Amino acid sequence: MTETDAMAAAMIAPAPSALTGDAVRLVEVGPRDGLQNEARYPDTATKVELITRLAACGLSAIEVGAFVSPRRVPAMADTAQVVRSLPSLSDISLPVLVPNMTGLEQALSVGCREIAVFVSASEGFSQRNIQCSVRESLVRYQGVIEAARTAGLRVRGYVSCVVRCPYDGDVAPSTVVPVVQWLLEQGCHEVSLGDTIGAATPAHIRALLQACATTLPVQALAGHFHDTYGMAVANVMAALEAGVRVFDTSVAGLGGCPYARGATGNVATENVLYLLHGLGMKTGVDLPRLVQVGDFISRALGRDSASAVGRALMR
Amino acid sequence: MTETDAMAAAMIAPAPSALTGDAVRLVEVGPRDGLQNEARYPDTATKVELITRLAACGLSAIEVGAFVSPRRVPAMADTAQVVRSLPSLSDISLPVLVPNMTGLEQALSVGCREIAVFVSASEGFSQRNIQCSVRESLVRYQGVIEAARTAGLRVRGYVSCVVRCPYDGDVAPSTVVPVVQWLLEQGCHEVSLGDTIGAATPAHIRALLQACATTLPVQALAGHFHDTYGMAVANVMAALEAGVRVFDTSVAGLGGCPYARGATGNVATENVLYLLHGLGMKTGVDLPRLVQVGDFISRALGRDSASAVGRALMR
Repeated sequence: MTETDAMAAAMIAPAPSALTGDAVRLVEVGPRDGLQNEARYPDTATKVELITRLAACGLSAIEVGAFVSPRRVPAMADTAQVVRSLPSLSDISLPVLVPNMTGLEQALSVGCREIAVFVSASEGFSQRNIQCSVRESLVRYQGVIEAARTAGLRVRGYVSCVVRCPYDGDVAPSTVVPVVQWLLEQGCHEVSLGDTIGAATPAHIRALLQACATTLPVQALAGHFHDTYGMAVANVMAALEAGVRVFDTSVAGLGGCPYARGATGNVATENVLYLLHGLGMKTGVDLPRLVQVGDFISRALGRDSASAVGRALMR
Repeated sequence: MTETDAMAAAMIAPAPSALTGDAVRLVEVGPRDGLQNEARYPDTATKVELITRLAACGLSAIEVGAFVSPRRVPAMADTAQVVRSLPSLSDISLPVLVPNMTGLEQALSVGCREIAVFVSASEGFSQRNIQCSVRESLVRYQGVIEAARTAGLRVRGYVSCVVRCPYDGDVAPSTVVPVVQWLLEQGCHEVSLGDTIGAATPAHIRALLQACATTLPVQALAGHFHDTYGMAVANVMAALEAGVRVFDTSVAGLGGCPYARGATGNVATENVLYLLHGLGMKTGVDLPRLVQVGDFISRALGRDSASAVGRALMR
């Protein structure tokens, strides 16, 4: 029995699920949203190996980097080299985050096929994060999205602080919906709803998705939950019940250390897979193999995995 | 603004909840199920201070110790001294775990008003944990429960491995229900359903509770979830939706089970409170104050809190 066979045997059999529509797609954001927020980050070769190994687990979408200021975000400074060094992964979506036209030009220059753009639902976060109002950020992005689509790229939208903002406090669903709607109207194929500070509970996610569903197609929405308060898996469950079938997750819970104060990592891919497979949902992702990838990147960063599933199955 | 005021301000406002029956009771098991399974355990005075501080947070039930073999479970060897040293907490339920008639006699000798008894739903765990079959354990307990009730004590029942056993694998709801029913028939006022190795997902908890609800009163059931695979908060949510309003939790996520492979601590009291208050449920427990208690016991044990909420709010 191999190590991954032993892990598979240790896992629980799925229980009957009341959920309809059993296919779920994960967007692996560890190489970008995860590594961007780690105290240490790996060299280019390790990033390329990470992405290649993630793809081999069956993930169909992996965010591979960001064309942002290398001074502000040094962890993403080698995104061009990472993209150029990737093996052919033609059947996989590999978005890169871009904040502006310069970023889009860099993405185009290395042959990216998909970009991601990000706006905040709250004024306070928009001002502190990208130094402009929400409205100004939309105006700024309009040209970027249009140029990207003209160039044949797919565009994914992120909305951050969809439930609570670290500066403005609670954010009402009625504030979020128009921003999501705007991104979809500009031609984003999908908009990811980000609980950036991990403050939401399932009731908040439900209220938000109910508000979205009145005017927006739920199949165009993704859930992007951070595990700061340990609520992320429950929030995935609530979003599943509201019809969401796409989730952003991060291998090994990259983006926050479990033993450091104020860990704010994305929900771990391993934990979400354990949930989904236990619910009888299909993801196409090999969990035991992914646990090995989580172990690989955790060792490379010299830290413990932030995924409970990763730690339990590696024991 | 005090430290607890600042924490309260950092917390999210509750979202409208679809749940009916908004009062939830927590049974704090940190001083017993938690400390029993820690690598280090504190001295008697620290335990007494822990319990006293927990009571001051508004918890109405705290499991304070176990009258078990001091050789096998040295962390619980001072339970008699702990119980004798407690200040008057007359309005609080303070159960102690007892495995047999000797344990009951010890509990009675120090004036305990409530005991907890524990049986396994799975044969493998029963044999390894208490060296007898499930049926033999029921026979053994029958006299203990009867004697306890004759002495005027309340008796709480635990059933372990209600979803998966580390030795036997998956456990069917049809195996669990008769054991729960037997405990209720013997006069237990409440039976706590233990996912001892934390393997369950919300679908498993739902299936189990559906099976229980066909013949048993759901208001007599409690959820006891471990967070080994990061599913515990989602499982609390599933149990809430199935009508359960009592949960066993452990401050700072103390504990684990030494006899269950891969088990980590109970779900953290702080995380469950964050969930419940975010859902608009009432617990009567002061979360910011409880976070301080979690910090106190984590420091006393020389370890980091296992509660994401505790770490986030102590930032």
